[in-house]
Amino acid sequence: MSASISPLAPKKYPKMPAVEGVRIATAEAGIKYKGRTDLLAMVFDEGTTVAGVFTRSKCPSAPVDYCRENLGGGKARMLVVNSGNANAFTGKKGRETTRITGEAAAKAANCKPGDVFLASTGVIGEPLDASKFGPLLAGMVKEAKPDLWVEAARAIMTTDTYPKVVTATVRLGDVDVTLNGIAKGAGMIAPDMATMLSFVATDAPIAAPVLQELLSKGTAKTFNAVTVDSDTSTSDTLLLFATGAAARRGAAPVVDARDARLGRFRRALGKMLKTLALQVVRDGEGARKQIEVTVTGAKSARSAKRIALSIANSPLVKTAVAGEDANWGRVVMAVGKAGEPADRDRLSVWFGDNRLAHEGERDPAYSEEATSAYMKRDEIRIRADIGIGRGKATVWTCDLTKEYVAINGDYRS
Amino acid sequence: MSASISPLAPKKYPKMPAVEGVRIATAEAGIKYKGRTDLLAMVFDEGTTVAGVFTRSKCPSAPVDYCRENLGGGKARMLVVNSGNANAFTGKKGRETTRITGEAAAKAANCKPGDVFLASTGVIGEPLDASKFGPLLAGMVKEAKPDLWVEAARAIMTTDTYPKVVTATVRLGDVDVTLNGIAKGAGMIAPDMATMLSFVATDAPIAAPVLQELLSKGTAKTFNAVTVDSDTSTSDTLLLFATGAAARRGAAPVVDARDARLGRFRRALGKMLKTLALQVVRDGEGARKQIEVTVTGAKSARSAKRIALSIANSPLVKTAVAGEDANWGRVVMAVGKAGEPADRDRLSVWFGDNRLAHEGERDPAYSEEATSAYMKRDEIRIRADIGIGRGKATVWTCDLTKEYVAINGDYRS
Repeated sequence: MSASISPLAPKKYPKMPAVEGVRIATAEAGIKYKGRTDLLAMVFDEGTTVAGVFTRSKCPSAPVDYCRENLGGGKARMLVVNSGNANAFTGKKGRETTRITGEAAAKAANCKPGDVFLASTGVIGEPLDASKFGPLLAGMVKEAKPDLWVEAARAIMTTDTYPKVVTATVRLGDVDVTLNGIAKGAGMIAPDMATMLSFVATDAPIAAPVLQELLSKGTAKTFNAVTVDSDTSTSDTLLLFATGAAARRGAAPVVDARDARLGRFRRALGKMLKTLALQVVRDGEGARKQIEVTVTGAKSARSAKRIALSIANSPLVKTAVAGEDANWGRVVMAVGKAGEPADRDRLSVWFGDNRLAHEGERDPAYSEEATSAYMKRDEIRIRADIGIGRGKATVWTCDLTKEYVAINGDYRS
Repeated sequence: MSASISPLAPKKYPKMPAVEGVRIATAEAGIKYKGRTDLLAMVFDEGTTVAGVFTRSKCPSAPVDYCRENLGGGKARMLVVNSGNANAFTGKKGRETTRITGEAAAKAANCKPGDVFLASTGVIGEPLDASKFGPLLAGMVKEAKPDLWVEAARAIMTTDTYPKVVTATVRLGDVDVTLNGIAKGAGMIAPDMATMLSFVATDAPIAAPVLQELLSKGTAKTFNAVTVDSDTSTSDTLLLFATGAAARRGAAPVVDARDARLGRFRRALGKMLKTLALQVVRDGEGARKQIEVTVTGAKSARSAKRIALSIANSPLVKTAVAGEDANWGRVVMAVGKAGEPADRDRLSVWFGDNRLAHEGERDPAYSEEATSAYMKRDEIRIRADIGIGRGKATVWTCDLTKEYVAINGDYRS
């Protein structure tokens, strides 16, 4: 863990309410870290539905495989997360660990192993010893309490410098429902300290297929639009649980994604996922500045997103922002290398509201002074207008600092 | 320019012989740098053929456009290269500059503008003032001498810490022919100090279409297999000139790429391009170690190259090498994120001859001590065997150090 907290950490934390139907426990299992919690159990009431999205890596971790398999059932009773070891690239031993943990959790929560979800984050390639935490689960289920969300966020941290939480309460028809979420980064991915994990729970009564559609659509412009270093972890996991407890307060079950009552819920979920994703970016390893990259005027939205990611992933753009240098030439380079349709002579580039380049040339009206002042901010907006269509996309990243190299260039041992 | 020479610079330089039919001049045009040469003119005898490969950027520089246009003629009489300004993203002004320079060069060399080739490297987006060097060209043509290859390599440097030259003499049938080459880096691309330029000349008599085929094939496993930071410049240019002067010593013209006499020439050209490409990598910004990434057992050669580039471009792999950490977990991550067919449980990873991972698990026989000793070397070999096919590829890169961030995070001004 890093000694100092990111300068981009939230100035204040929301008070996290309980989510009906969710109970939480954390423990010090001593998997790798000493003197801190590294184990999280979330226990869900019967009837809880679940949705998930996972890393696109072709070499996913054992827990990702386990979750994918159980997601088909659409039901969840327990989530177990450990930090300190990712149980990734651990072969048959890794699968055996998820099997043993799943069974221990099922026994503790009095459910089927198919209703258990697992996530692990930490070192890759080291066998994860299930005996360190399996025996703790029964006690954790007994002691689990509704109001431990910040503790939950702390237990899953690795190189994160602060816990990431978010909450929202919205109307679902005539009934208030609550959404709580937690996440951990901290590289968008540092796979030996893997990885991006996020868990959201609500008391809304939503059928699993609807929940899955909400989550899949919600990630496109949030978690799938952030990047720290273009590296994709073996373990990225985002799970959304709906306990349905609000049904007891009169909320009728949502069984259709076109249900008109979902409007506010969908927006709140989207906002929440974006907040969590940005918190991950803002705690990117060594991050000192948040960068928002917007591409407009591309041939299509898909093309715009590819160009935006090309800019956001460019080490030269990211180091320029770290150096507070409005180096629009590097933005042009990144547009050019994206391989998407572009016309140099129609390209314009802005840093904030300062247009630096216009129609293939340096903007003669551009003010070096105003731009330099702008580059000193914590949050930098870069916009590139391709000038050939109506495709638009926004992605977020952080700057690339010497600190990133220091954090990732240190010896494991 | 960097103050200190890369620790990976060559320990000694070859003595560069003349290439018959090529004369060279350099000058201090004061385009940006003071107290050093920044202008290179190469004058070629009548009958010189030319081949070229260029950046795939969709936003190429004006000189790249100019060269592409003239390449169709297949003939060259003069090459003009300036450092300090890339003439990229300079719009109509940029095109006007290439037109003026091309005409001044043609007049100086007494040839057509279509026989002139141009390259520029340096700052992007600043207008390049042709009046600073156009008037110098006539005098340079008069003074040009055959034996100034190292001076030529020096004149085109930007953030390079050393000039890059290579030479070879091979038999073409019964006649010795010479190949000389120069290149400049230094990021594989730092586009505000753009870019990768390389020029090779030979006295062999080779028809333009054959020369183009030799060059295009020769780049695939050399210049197109190196990467410093995954960024693609607006200006990458590689030109190959053949003066045909060796015909006067009895070499019969080569007009067919299947000519049996080309075997040695092709191998020498390939070796030379590889040497130049590796010199560029070894002078990558902040580079302290050269990394060779070999992927075997992939589904196809194309797939192997994509996986190899995914590993070579991963900031996490590159920072691990900088930290002398044999972090094979990050190699697994990079294999996974490449999106190419892979099977976690068949994957093996080596650093040098040390196998760290085998069939989806940490290799139990792996020696931490031997591997740690290996990681201290200047040249690190990483191999990943995918275990599902026969596809194979090798690419080269350098490590990612704090120095890279410092060089690229500095203010332009």
